[in-house]
Amino acid sequence: MERKEHLLKHSEWMKERPDMPVVLSSRIRLARNLEGVPFPLGLSQEASQEIEEKLSQQLEKLAIDGQKLTYYSIKDLTAIEQYVLIEKHLISPALVSARGARGVAINPDHRVSVMVNEEDHLRIQILLPGNQLEEAFRMANTLDDELEHRLDLAYRENQGYLTACPTNVGTGMRASVMVHIPALVMTHRVQQLLGALNHLGLAVRGLYGEGSQAFGHIYQVSNQITLGKSEEDTLTHLEAVTRQIVEQEVHAREGLGREARLTLEDKVWRARGTLENARLLKSEDALQSLSLDRLGVDMGILPPHQRSFSTLLVETLPASLQYILEKELTPEQRDEQRANFVRMAMSEVKETNKEGGNQNE
Amino acid sequence: MERKEHLLKHSEWMKERPDMPVVLSSRIRLARNLEGVPFPLGLSQEASQEIEEKLSQQLEKLAIDGQKLTYYSIKDLTAIEQYVLIEKHLISPALVSARGARGVAINPDHRVSVMVNEEDHLRIQILLPGNQLEEAFRMANTLDDELEHRLDLAYRENQGYLTACPTNVGTGMRASVMVHIPALVMTHRVQQLLGALNHLGLAVRGLYGEGSQAFGHIYQVSNQITLGKSEEDTLTHLEAVTRQIVEQEVHAREGLGREARLTLEDKVWRARGTLENARLLKSEDALQSLSLDRLGVDMGILPPHQRSFSTLLVETLPASLQYILEKELTPEQRDEQRANFVRMAMSEVKETNKEGGNQNE
Repeated sequence: MERKEHLLKHSEWMKERPDMPVVLSSRIRLARNLEGVPFPLGLSQEASQEIEEKLSQQLEKLAIDGQKLTYYSIKDLTAIEQYVLIEKHLISPALVSARGARGVAINPDHRVSVMVNEEDHLRIQILLPGNQLEEAFRMANTLDDELEHRLDLAYRENQGYLTACPTNVGTGMRASVMVHIPALVMTHRVQQLLGALNHLGLAVRGLYGEGSQAFGHIYQVSNQITLGKSEEDTLTHLEAVTRQIVEQEVHAREGLGREARLTLEDKVWRARGTLENARLLKSEDALQSLSLDRLGVDMGILPPHQRSFSTLLVETLPASLQYILEKELTPEQRDEQRANFVRMAMSEVKETNKEGGNQNE
Repeated sequence: MERKEHLLKHSEWMKERPDMPVVLSSRIRLARNLEGVPFPLGLSQEASQEIEEKLSQQLEKLAIDGQKLTYYSIKDLTAIEQYVLIEKHLISPALVSARGARGVAINPDHRVSVMVNEEDHLRIQILLPGNQLEEAFRMANTLDDELEHRLDLAYRENQGYLTACPTNVGTGMRASVMVHIPALVMTHRVQQLLGALNHLGLAVRGLYGEGSQAFGHIYQVSNQITLGKSEEDTLTHLEAVTRQIVEQEVHAREGLGREARLTLEDKVWRARGTLENARLLKSEDALQSLSLDRLGVDMGILPPHQRSFSTLLVETLPASLQYILEKELTPEQRDEQRANFVRMAMSEVKETNKEGGNQNE
């Protein structure tokens, strides 16, 4: 598979899982380091190259569910490609801004990505659509076992895995879910919920990591504690909380549907109208409208889409948009192309509906 | 023709005149009073009844272009019907709020309406679509001549026609045009224009008379001077000014089309999107969106409508909406029904376009 074809693929996590409402995706990340080697920040350029070479070779030998990993060194990726990977959640902004030899190994459907020489020597990530923390953990574990066979990983009996940042020492695991909670936002119940989650030792962030705002009514919820708590306990805890968030959001949607049906219908239909008609669409405007549109589809008010919510969210972001269109764009040109892109995506839906309608006639 | 059928008709002035851009309608109003009879405000209830009876009989004998007038006494109209007539510009709010016996005579296509016992005994109005001041004046004159033959009208050689309010003494004529100038509003040139018009002795008001705001980018421009200036001079003056307003608006539209094409396309398409998708639509929101939609149609950006701009403007107003739907509605219900009404009107367009498209295939 060519690089562009590989990077442009719709990631597995972007697929719709209508059986799993509210939770857009589930993610497990394991931080691992090599025994007896300084953490990436302490490596010379040469040493980082040696580590990258060694780890990338091992990673390309691995297969998960029969799929091989392909390694991309940051130096071989264009700036746009690096941002495409960030927008697809396959690498962190920190990998791009870090120094030294570094990169990422990705499997064909993007469920697996392993960063090399970000903050730690290895960052194993499994990213799946819907509420699938257990399955993501199973895959991460399998990959971790494979790597343990091939590499000498830094592990202490009483501390667990050693990591560059003390907040990751122990399991080295960060488990997170991305939740779409427009009804909780619209009914002003989200602040209370976020406060409660913090009290439970969970971190809540916007769509693109720490500090990023919660555009599109999307929040990432993740564990903060990695020391003194087993992976299983962490997962059980996060799964229980996720179930509660889903329940509360579903409850809030039912409430809106009962008590403010028309206002809700007006909002989601207007959002669909914006997506179908705008000729200039800013990122935040797109996120907001796509979020309301998805709510409308979820609640059976709007006819469904051909493209998934997550796909549209990612493909309207600046780098993905430019990569797909194969040209560099000014912010104004991006707003125009974003509007065109979304409008075309929406008209695909209509064609399908129309054909469906005719068949029924 | 039954009363309801008559009042619900699309008034002639609501028709599109694509050959006459910017000017939605032209209106001539003549104030006339009976010789030797106190003005309506000075009439007893009984006296006003006598006047109403006398004048309504004469009015129902008249025919203009072969069309007879039908007289409606305010006391026989429901409150909703009175407001429907105001929304259609066939009577003034002052006729409704006045006391005494009063009413209006209207011809089948609503080009002619003559109010009895508003501020003056007679207020003759001709209302035509597009830029047709001359034709409106011709018709008003014909009607005025007919009435002069049948009635003794208060006229003084040196003063002209006597009227209840001194601002109307002389010709008793108010000539006005309703102009749709969204591009002048969008390019912030409207305030300067309005100032200049005032200096020229012209009054500028919003869509529904004195003090009403200029919703929908629509302004009424009319003469203020009735004394010491002939009807012909007044008309020539207003026609020249109207030509200038049209030129300036057309010029501003060309400028927008050249320098802010995308922003303009975005605005008008989003307006169309709102009209096609909203489930709740407030009056001002409807006016604003209909205005931008019309601009888009005028500039060839949007496909045209089945229904005229003026028709949609009037039929989405509170009283007309309730009269058409034959039920009393709360403000919230009106917003819902207004949205439904506009959405249906927009889907008529689509059907036509689709059929047209298929024929070309």
